[in-house]
Amino acid sequence: MPATAPDLTGLIARRKPGWSLEQPFYNHPEIHAADLERVFRRNWLFVGHANRIPNPGDYFLHQFDQDSLLFLRGDDGVVRGLFNMCRHRGSLVCLEAQGHVARLVCPYHQWVYDRDGALVGAASMPEGFERAEFGLAPFQVRVVEGLIFMCLAETPPPFEEIETAIRGHLEPYELESAQICHTRTYQVRANWKLMEENFRECYHCPVGHPEYCSIVMPVGETREQIAAFRAEQHERWARAGLSLLDIGFQSENGFHCARYPMRRGYVSESLDGGPVAPPMGRLTDPDAGILAIVMFPNFWFEASGDHAVSMRRTPLSPTMCEVEASWLVRGDAVVGRDFDVDRVTAFWRITGEQDWTLCENNQAGVNSSRYRPGPYATVERGPETFVQWYLGQLTAG
Amino acid sequence: MPATAPDLTGLIARRKPGWSLEQPFYNHPEIHAADLERVFRRNWLFVGHANRIPNPGDYFLHQFDQDSLLFLRGDDGVVRGLFNMCRHRGSLVCLEAQGHVARLVCPYHQWVYDRDGALVGAASMPEGFERAEFGLAPFQVRVVEGLIFMCLAETPPPFEEIETAIRGHLEPYELESAQICHTRTYQVRANWKLMEENFRECYHCPVGHPEYCSIVMPVGETREQIAAFRAEQHERWARAGLSLLDIGFQSENGFHCARYPMRRGYVSESLDGGPVAPPMGRLTDPDAGILAIVMFPNFWFEASGDHAVSMRRTPLSPTMCEVEASWLVRGDAVVGRDFDVDRVTAFWRITGEQDWTLCENNQAGVNSSRYRPGPYATVERGPETFVQWYLGQLTAG
Amino acid sequence: MPATAPDLTGLIARRKPGWSLEQPFYNHPEIHAADLERVFRRNWLFVGHANRIPNPGDYFLHQFDQDSLLFLRGDDGVVRGLFNMCRHRGSLVCLEAQGHVARLVCPYHQWVYDRDGALVGAASMPEGFERAEFGLAPFQVRVVEGLIFMCLAETPPPFEEIETAIRGHLEPYELESAQICHTRTYQVRANWKLMEENFRECYHCPVGHPEYCSIVMPVGETREQIAAFRAEQHERWARAGLSLLDIGFQSENGFHCARYPMRRGYVSESLDGGPVAPPMGRLTDPDAGILAIVMFPNFWFEASGDHAVSMRRTPLSPTMCEVEASWLVRGDAVVGRDFDVDRVTAFWRITGEQDWTLCENNQAGVNSSRYRPGPYATVERGPETFVQWYLGQLTAG
Repeated sequence: MPATAPDLTGLIARRKPGWSLEQPFYNHPEIHAADLERVFRRNWLFVGHANRIPNPGDYFLHQFDQDSLLFLRGDDGVVRGLFNMCRHRGSLVCLEAQGHVARLVCPYHQWVYDRDGALVGAASMPEGFERAEFGLAPFQVRVVEGLIFMCLAETPPPFEEIETAIRGHLEPYELESAQICHTRTYQVRANWKLMEENFRECYHCPVGHPEYCSIVMPVGETREQIAAFRAEQHERWARAGLSLLDIGFQSENGFHCARYPMRRGYVSESLDGGPVAPPMGRLTDPDAGILAIVMFPNFWFEASGDHAVSMRRTPLSPTMCEVEASWLVRGDAVVGRDFDVDRVTAFWRITGEQDWTLCENNQAGVNSSRYRPGPYATVERGPETFVQWYLGQLTAG
Repeated sequence: MPATAPDLTGLIARRKPGWSLEQPFYNHPEIHAADLERVFRRNWLFVGHANRIPNPGDYFLHQFDQDSLLFLRGDDGVVRGLFNMCRHRGSLVCLEAQGHVARLVCPYHQWVYDRDGALVGAASMPEGFERAEFGLAPFQVRVVEGLIFMCLAETPPPFEEIETAIRGHLEPYELESAQICHTRTYQVRANWKLMEENFRECYHCPVGHPEYCSIVMPVGETREQIAAFRAEQHERWARAGLSLLDIGFQSENGFHCARYPMRRGYVSESLDGGPVAPPMGRLTDPDAGILAIVMFPNFWFEASGDHAVSMRRTPLSPTMCEVEASWLVRGDAVVGRDFDVDRVTAFWRITGEQDWTLCENNQAGVNSSRYRPGPYATVERGPETFVQWYLGQLTAG
Repeated sequence: MPATAPDLTGLIARRKPGWSLEQPFYNHPEIHAADLERVFRRNWLFVGHANRIPNPGDYFLHQFDQDSLLFLRGDDGVVRGLFNMCRHRGSLVCLEAQGHVARLVCPYHQWVYDRDGALVGAASMPEGFERAEFGLAPFQVRVVEGLIFMCLAETPPPFEEIETAIRGHLEPYELESAQICHTRTYQVRANWKLMEENFRECYHCPVGHPEYCSIVMPVGETREQIAAFRAEQHERWARAGLSLLDIGFQSENGFHCARYPMRRGYVSESLDGGPVAPPMGRLTDPDAGILAIVMFPNFWFEASGDHAVSMRRTPLSPTMCEVEASWLVRGDAVVGRDFDVDRVTAFWRITGEQDWTLCENNQAGVNSSRYRPGPYATVERGPETFVQWYLGQLTAG
């Protein structure tokens, strides 16, 4: 850890567009604290899938920074976000990563909360104690097509446009009724921004991701042939009623969604490009291209016609980041008969793990006393857009 | 770890009586440092049992904060406290947790110290070197009825009143000749104050400690019946010459001792309430009630007529505390014949471990960004008294 | 970790000559940072043996502080020092501890560097990008008789005198063609200065190092007999053309080399004092005494006529230091026939490990709140000279 506090304002002011960030952005505890405060605690974050908690009283926990966060489906069917912390003396209320409760009962002194967080029981409290003032502290949650998002800020930024875009794309996949067939958690020894930069460019793909390239990248085709295939696919998807809305990244929005074709002849992000599960939701044609959705700072999602993958990024320290990856297939598919978990997960498990290694090597080098920002290649506009968005967040209001 | 230093004076000034403390008191490194300096290093602390070192030359070590502390019985039979650090170049002198020495010989350059810490040998020292100036650094130690207490301050606070009270109660139990039949050390992921608050209230007992309640708490009796039983027991104990002195906690003294009855028909803090060892010392009637002694900030002790339990609390970090629990039975009792270690230890092992879990859950929740002090229940006067004592220590002299 | 920053200038000013240093020098993170910056990053450091990388393209890595350092033999046969960090976005370039490369290719985006560090390939870079400005960052390296030294400063201190002395002594041992028969790495829980002080005195030897004393220290001889034997040996070595240059430590040079006899009748630093391998290089008489070379802050080396041992010290934290020990025998010796690894390594493995334990006990005691500097014995001039050199480095320029 560097001994002196970094001059954040100066670092931002002298940043050279088109070059990677200076070292303190990637490993200094104070900039890490600023990232949590100004980037993660002010924006909408992806949390997980609503089908983890289908019934009233179902809940799961998510540890973010020092906060244990509780996601609980109420009697009204609404998923709520509550700080998992008793208002009496601060004990955790729920202790299991996932479960079901009739009411929430603090394990310390048995204060009782309803499934919407209201305090309904607290023995031996003094005169003047008002239960109404001691409900579990809430935070904002939105569920969009089965994806749970949260914002810890009291006044969250607008979310409607993103919601609309996600709904338009995801509705036919019927994610809320899908099943999570696998979840894997990684602790990657890299700053979360190095991981976002990594996911925003494919300069590293030809050598770093042979499996990805062999399925997604066209080969042996002219520029014209590629364009023609793209147009052909667009027409096919339009006919099938699939959204073709394409929102490109901008340094202002921090959001991206698009549908694009795989290599000609391939229909799924699987190791052989063939389908690995029945079509999702009410899709009938397995060839729905790749639907990609990304939202800064922590959400990545890709769906083929037959399965979907989400990745949630959670910073753990200046140089450590957790990734929770989940794979989904249609809800009534039967494992062993309709799909094989290894086949569904192999493509992004392999590709993701290749990236974690690249990011860890990147972090180890960036820590060097001689590290200086380097110039992005022309094909690295993605990282540049991300960095601009990020710096905008740090300097905003 | 919070980024900015807490304003300790402000935090103390705005503390609301009857409410738990603000978060930095429970997890900030600077307040932890203040706790060590102003609370632990200025007060008398419990260390262990003198019967660990019955003979001249017997010693044991206790690691407190960065200090290795040596407790050594001298040729005069007196237990002394010495910093376990050679005055030459600072090496540890004793390396084993417990042992026996004829003289203390530093393993580095063989400086030799007598069993009272005086330097008696140091080869090749330059002209003018005075051995008398290089004895092992001492600190204050008092042994009261076989309990060793220490104070690291140069001018310790008065201890006589506490000594007198302890002697009056403990003398018939003859602890110095008792045997330690079991010791267990726990590292609890909680601030030491959360652990003291936990031990100062029984609001959590009905659900948290079923074993404890079934032995100690009256059941199915009217208030009058309970009072009558208490009076009856007091009379019995007075006849047996047992002390009935009751010193209640006050925010000034940080000390508590009392004798009180168990549930009618039970005589020992054991899982079935029956005796688990022969009566201690010169007690004859196994029913001596519960003798409870507590001294802030680190000592807890309870004796039934047939066994005693001590707990020593040592803070390891802002959110980690060590507990060393020791169980004692009379010295001439024979294991296997007169007592069974599992039966002697089960009650407080189970009850203590229930508390460690409650405290760890409490700490995990208190770390939350949304934690705010909560109101104590009417039955939580104990924590309030402790907190007042604690804040008094922080602001004293 | 102490809460407040130490006043380095004040600590240096009030240092009493002939006494060990104050506590913060041995455990404070800020003084540790100063040690790295002003002592380690400004001076020549020992790195390893050139015979690890005999051919062009051979390399090994050395992690120093946050820097991954690459030592690579170029096409011209020269060993170069390069920061192992791509100039594009900072990834590590080499990932194995040791290996061979035709060219250096960054595993992230495949930037290509020549074996002298020049950038020769970088795809898709924008207009105006000059490869010449993006070679791997170099640092200074000197190879002296097969010993690799580095200096991370832009303007290294003079090294010629030391080079000349080392060459004069080591040339007959032909280290570059020797073989490393064993390497062992230790993580010692002690500040690097406690380890240097330990190696600079033999006050601790009589009890601490029985094996060392039985081979190296004269026994049962008068002062005159010892002097006579020494003179006899000097004559023998002079006849054999071995250097007798004796550079004693001074607080200015931080360097020491000398040749001196073992106990009469012994010829090698082995457990029985007998030879454990064929004579090194072009030595013919196995009795070449002990050739000792030490260079502050991190190099220690001793050679008998038949084998040599080097130790490289690398600080890992204020209270943790790595030692890499390597044993060398002549290059054409065959293991199992000409030497046995256990016999070659036993003497300094045992003696070294005795020292690590002494140093760890020293550190544990020095951490005490009551530690104060202690007086060096008359036979501890070595530590005093080291401390003076060290303080001189801290205050220089």
